[in-house]
Amino acid sequence: MDSIIINIGDEILDGDILNTNAQYISRNLKDINISVKRNHVIKDEISSIVEITKKSLKDSDIVIITGGLGPTDDDITREAVSKALNYNLYLDKILLQDLELIFSKNNYIMTKNNIKQAYRIENATIIPNEKGTAPGMFIKKNNKYIFLLPGPPKELKPMFDRIVEKYLQNLSKKKIYSKIIKTIGIGESQLEEKIKPYFNDNIKIGTYAYNGIVDIKVTSYNNILSNAKENVDKFVENINIEKFIWGYNDDTLEKIVFNLLKKHKLKIGFAESLTGGLISSNLTKLSGISEVFPLSLITYSNESKINLLDVKKLTLQNHGAVSEKVALEMCTGLINKYGLDISLSVTGIAGPTGNTKNKPIGLVYIGIADKNNDICKKIILNGDRIHIQNKTSLYAFNELRKFLIKKYE
Amino acid sequence: MDSIIINIGDEILDGDILNTNAQYISRNLKDINISVKRNHVIKDEISSIVEITKKSLKDSDIVIITGGLGPTDDDITREAVSKALNYNLYLDKILLQDLELIFSKNNYIMTKNNIKQAYRIENATIIPNEKGTAPGMFIKKNNKYIFLLPGPPKELKPMFDRIVEKYLQNLSKKKIYSKIIKTIGIGESQLEEKIKPYFNDNIKIGTYAYNGIVDIKVTSYNNILSNAKENVDKFVENINIEKFIWGYNDDTLEKIVFNLLKKHKLKIGFAESLTGGLISSNLTKLSGISEVFPLSLITYSNESKINLLDVKKLTLQNHGAVSEKVALEMCTGLINKYGLDISLSVTGIAGPTGNTKNKPIGLVYIGIADKNNDICKKIILNGDRIHIQNKTSLYAFNELRKFLIKKYE
Repeated sequence: MDSIIINIGDEILDGDILNTNAQYISRNLKDINISVKRNHVIKDEISSIVEITKKSLKDSDIVIITGGLGPTDDDITREAVSKALNYNLYLDKILLQDLELIFSKNNYIMTKNNIKQAYRIENATIIPNEKGTAPGMFIKKNNKYIFLLPGPPKELKPMFDRIVEKYLQNLSKKKIYSKIIKTIGIGESQLEEKIKPYFNDNIKIGTYAYNGIVDIKVTSYNNILSNAKENVDKFVENINIEKFIWGYNDDTLEKIVFNLLKKHKLKIGFAESLTGGLISSNLTKLSGISEVFPLSLITYSNESKINLLDVKKLTLQNHGAVSEKVALEMCTGLINKYGLDISLSVTGIAGPTGNTKNKPIGLVYIGIADKNNDICKKIILNGDRIHIQNKTSLYAFNELRKFLIKKYE
Repeated sequence: MDSIIINIGDEILDGDILNTNAQYISRNLKDINISVKRNHVIKDEISSIVEITKKSLKDSDIVIITGGLGPTDDDITREAVSKALNYNLYLDKILLQDLELIFSKNNYIMTKNNIKQAYRIENATIIPNEKGTAPGMFIKKNNKYIFLLPGPPKELKPMFDRIVEKYLQNLSKKKIYSKIIKTIGIGESQLEEKIKPYFNDNIKIGTYAYNGIVDIKVTSYNNILSNAKENVDKFVENINIEKFIWGYNDDTLEKIVFNLLKKHKLKIGFAESLTGGLISSNLTKLSGISEVFPLSLITYSNESKINLLDVKKLTLQNHGAVSEKVALEMCTGLINKYGLDISLSVTGIAGPTGNTKNKPIGLVYIGIADKNNDICKKIILNGDRIHIQNKTSLYAFNELRKFLIKKYE
């Protein structure tokens, strides 16, 4: 089965808004084996909507239309699509009651314009909108499937997720099971080489790389859900990439580290140089973090490394601030002075200046210590300053994850 | 004049790539008064490209086509467009030489496939590609203008910028001048109300809101550049929003603060609680920052506020960690203990828990001090945890900017 996506709205054509809806829909359709043939972005203009809708219905099985369902004058999608389908548009009294209820519940005044949102295209099934006032619609005509969805992503996404489950999966009569494998420390193309021998017709594989992380999405569709699950599980078991995997599905490295710290009742602190607070800030994005995170120090200057972390002047002189020795002294200083259980330090050269012959831009030392152990990992990253800072944070959390698992699990 | 944008490529339709090219082109066309009528995303498929190109040329003055100019088998845009225009496609020997030169310069081996990129559509003007191997093309036929541009944004953007200047501006025979006014502390719609009385036919206004900042882009096009500039300057002078403006064009709050600190040779440090290192990290994204930034402390727990910043136990007991008193003691502690010239502290409730009856989620105190002065600003922000942290950082830099200007300029 194939589909065409039509996004309606001047704000996308003007470039005020990035068309994330099309990507969201495409990705999700791909997962259930429905391909996207074309994507049209068109104006809030009756004649264009009618023309493109008609042509799209001719050319594909499924037409998904987003935007133009709101209450303002330029919201004319309902009217245009009813014309394109040659179906009537009528005021649905139940929809109107629902709408009045939403407004009275929220103490909003319902203006005359809002009544538009209670109009239903003949033969349409209503898709309730849990995040806004404009309901979506689903229409089947001559074995073609048309979906009308609201434009705002926060309304569209939950509605689309329900549609994918209810309608489109049933259309293809197959159940879907999918799992995301999260990896670090290996490039996308290298990873693909490694897992390619295990590809088979029962599964679909997509890889997505970002910031040094590569996600592998494994999907299987089958008439029986447990079969689909088995196909995915078998693939995941067989591919021999254990050492690159750090999590599955919604996992983030920060969440995994947070849970390990919580489980073992460990207090952590960071001593950051080149990342300037980024690692601490990434951890404190998580709610409830104060349970494991009392403090961190950002020691950008040599003096602050000496005064706040007891790094030895001589070590700085002999090895330089960007060195294994300094990374380790930062770590132990943090533990000893501030009563922490675990510490992590980073020192490196983020660029674009500050490099020397022996110390290139992207050279980073990550130190980790508890009361009995300390380790230091040297990495060399490429990219610009901000990229190097971001990747350092990611690698730091991955090293921390490995350290915590090895020493405490 | 109006235009249609056609993006070619399965990777966009599959959702692997977000279509940022369409937005980039739309925004830039809008600035020179060329509207976008439609945007089509289509497959790498000769028949589709021919059909949509023909229809687009019928319906609008300018057709901009991106993608499918590379060397691989699915790059068929040249061939398809030459068909749509009924123009020949031929091997251009000069283009071939250029191509061979690029490859030999970079020590790459030129494969047979690469020769495709030396084919030129009859009557096309070549647009050199400074960032890649595939050249762009410009064709005028029957008073219609067709542009072929490569898909990768880093190749497309510089090429498009040159086109806008050279061709499209000349088409409209008008020169453009534009200025971005950067504001904070006022909502987009309120701001629009304030500046609306000064709107006139000589200028175009666009507002873009993000993260609590609102940019106003003022553009004027005129046969004479100095007239366009005068139109923009007159508008900027007349609108009475001085107190919300913090910068122009490429300014960021961090850059402005960095420059003020550098100019007055001031060393700064932060004492962060709810932002957990975000403010420090945002400043250290700037290269050369070590000149003004020796250290920061992230004091998440009450104990760390006491031990590291000399905040009084009694102040914490009587007022709570989220209070004006604590924010100010954090600031003066930081200055007195660590030999800094300026300090900034933040304490607040980022949520989703931790609020009390008197202290709602989003309550934030920002303290600023130097050796002679201290101030504290109370703000209440809305949004989720990460949004509140981000906005706090933004407001902190804005308060710092105002403090530095008031006390040092």
